Amino acid sequence: MKIPVIRKVLESNERSAKDLETLFRDKGLLALNLMSSPGAGKTALLERTLSDLQAEFRMAVVEGDLQTSNDAGRIADTGAAVVQINTQGACHLSAGMVGAAVKQLPLDSLDIVFIENVGNLVCPAEFQLGEDKRVTMLSLPEGDDKPEKYPPMFAQSQVMILNKLDLLPHLDFDLERARKGARLVNKDLKIFTVSARTGEGMEPWYAWLKQAVLDKKMQKNNAEP
Amino acid sequence: MKIPVIRKVLESNERSAKDLETLFRDKGLLALNLMSSPGAGKTALLERTLSDLQAEFRMAVVEGDLQTSNDAGRIADTGAAVVQINTQGACHLSAGMVGAAVKQLPLDSLDIVFIENVGNLVCPAEFQLGEDKRVTMLSLPEGDDKPEKYPPMFAQSQVMILNKLDLLPHLDFDLERARKGARLVNKDLKIFTVSARTGEGMEPWYAWLKQAVLDKKMQKNNAEP
Repeated sequence: MKIPVIRKVLESNERSAKDLETLFRDKGLLALNLMSSPGAGKTALLERTLSDLQAEFRMAVVEGDLQTSNDAGRIADTGAAVVQINTQGACHLSAGMVGAAVKQLPLDSLDIVFIENVGNLVCPAEFQLGEDKRVTMLSLPEGDDKPEKYPPMFAQSQVMILNKLDLLPHLDFDLERARKGARLVNKDLKIFTVSARTGEGMEPWYAWLKQAVLDKKMQKNNAEP
Repeated sequence: MKIPVIRKVLESNERSAKDLETLFRDKGLLALNLMSSPGAGKTALLERTLSDLQAEFRMAVVEGDLQTSNDAGRIADTGAAVVQINTQGACHLSAGMVGAAVKQLPLDSLDIVFIENVGNLVCPAEFQLGEDKRVTMLSLPEGDDKPEKYPPMFAQSQVMILNKLDLLPHLDFDLERARKGARLVNKDLKIFTVSARTGEGMEPWYAWLKQAVLDKKMQKNNAEP
């Protein structure tokens, strides 16, 4: 009884995700789905990225949280456009929620939309949001064994960001073990190791973002008659 | 369409949870449901608790993980009985899973069963496991705003353990803000602040455990004819 209904929910989400994908493609807009456990540092990464790249790109954020608009407030402080979604208990964003939220953004004058998912290393993996790429963040205090213990999220992402590098001296965290574990579940995973707090290691992430924006614009131009 | 089926799943879980509750009461056995985000330190707390209290209590652990038996291995190293559940992707333990697992434990010769849930600060809150108390752990690197951002878990717990106190000097974490935020969603929450790594602050937690075991035995004795 449970399985077919869950399948229906996923299928309905997939249809909404396809619509979003088309919308983002028509606008030549790079959409990234940013996922992690609570408190891994997704908002901190966005704060720094939005500030550092504001001269280069026009960016906006869709914020997903069970409750509060704390994160949207932090994003708004950077000057970027932001929409807060409160899921009222739901453990992930759905394409329907994101579709309603992006209507409030000036999509024609944007290069990147970051979708910050609910903090959860399990459920968001199942729900497509029309994104171009999935970026999963793992913070060092969570432990180097997490990619192997929570494989679906890492298996379905294109990028892993190891965050809170500034805490490395105070932790029993083996960077090589984390990278190796992540590549065991996804050999193509692109990995960046950063401290969103100090700014260490952000340049390769920015370089990747720039290339991804270029690729998306090219895709749009090639599609036009 | 979705709601009634989810209600059915929850009702079926509730029935299994009632059976577990009866089983634990008949055995005079304290059952604790330990929940948190991935990597907050649930297993580390258990490792230290099992070692420190092994002369006093007979304890066992049910380990819940999406994949791997890493945590069961760590628990087994302390000498305690342990059963690993792999949920194969499910984001929480259910009473049915726990019911099957505890059959493999020597319930008649135990004082405490710790049920270590899947690392997830959202979904486990909805699923009763026949437990006497719910213990939710928040680790300092996750941030002091998490009780307000993820209220259901904290609202439905009796105990909050703030862990990784040893990292406090390296973080922007306000202990008072975290405690205040948690008490806003649950004014009766009992709060312990510890470092499972160094052992700091563990004594009040042990004193609480001892009282809870006594209460459970008394409950059993009072129920007997």
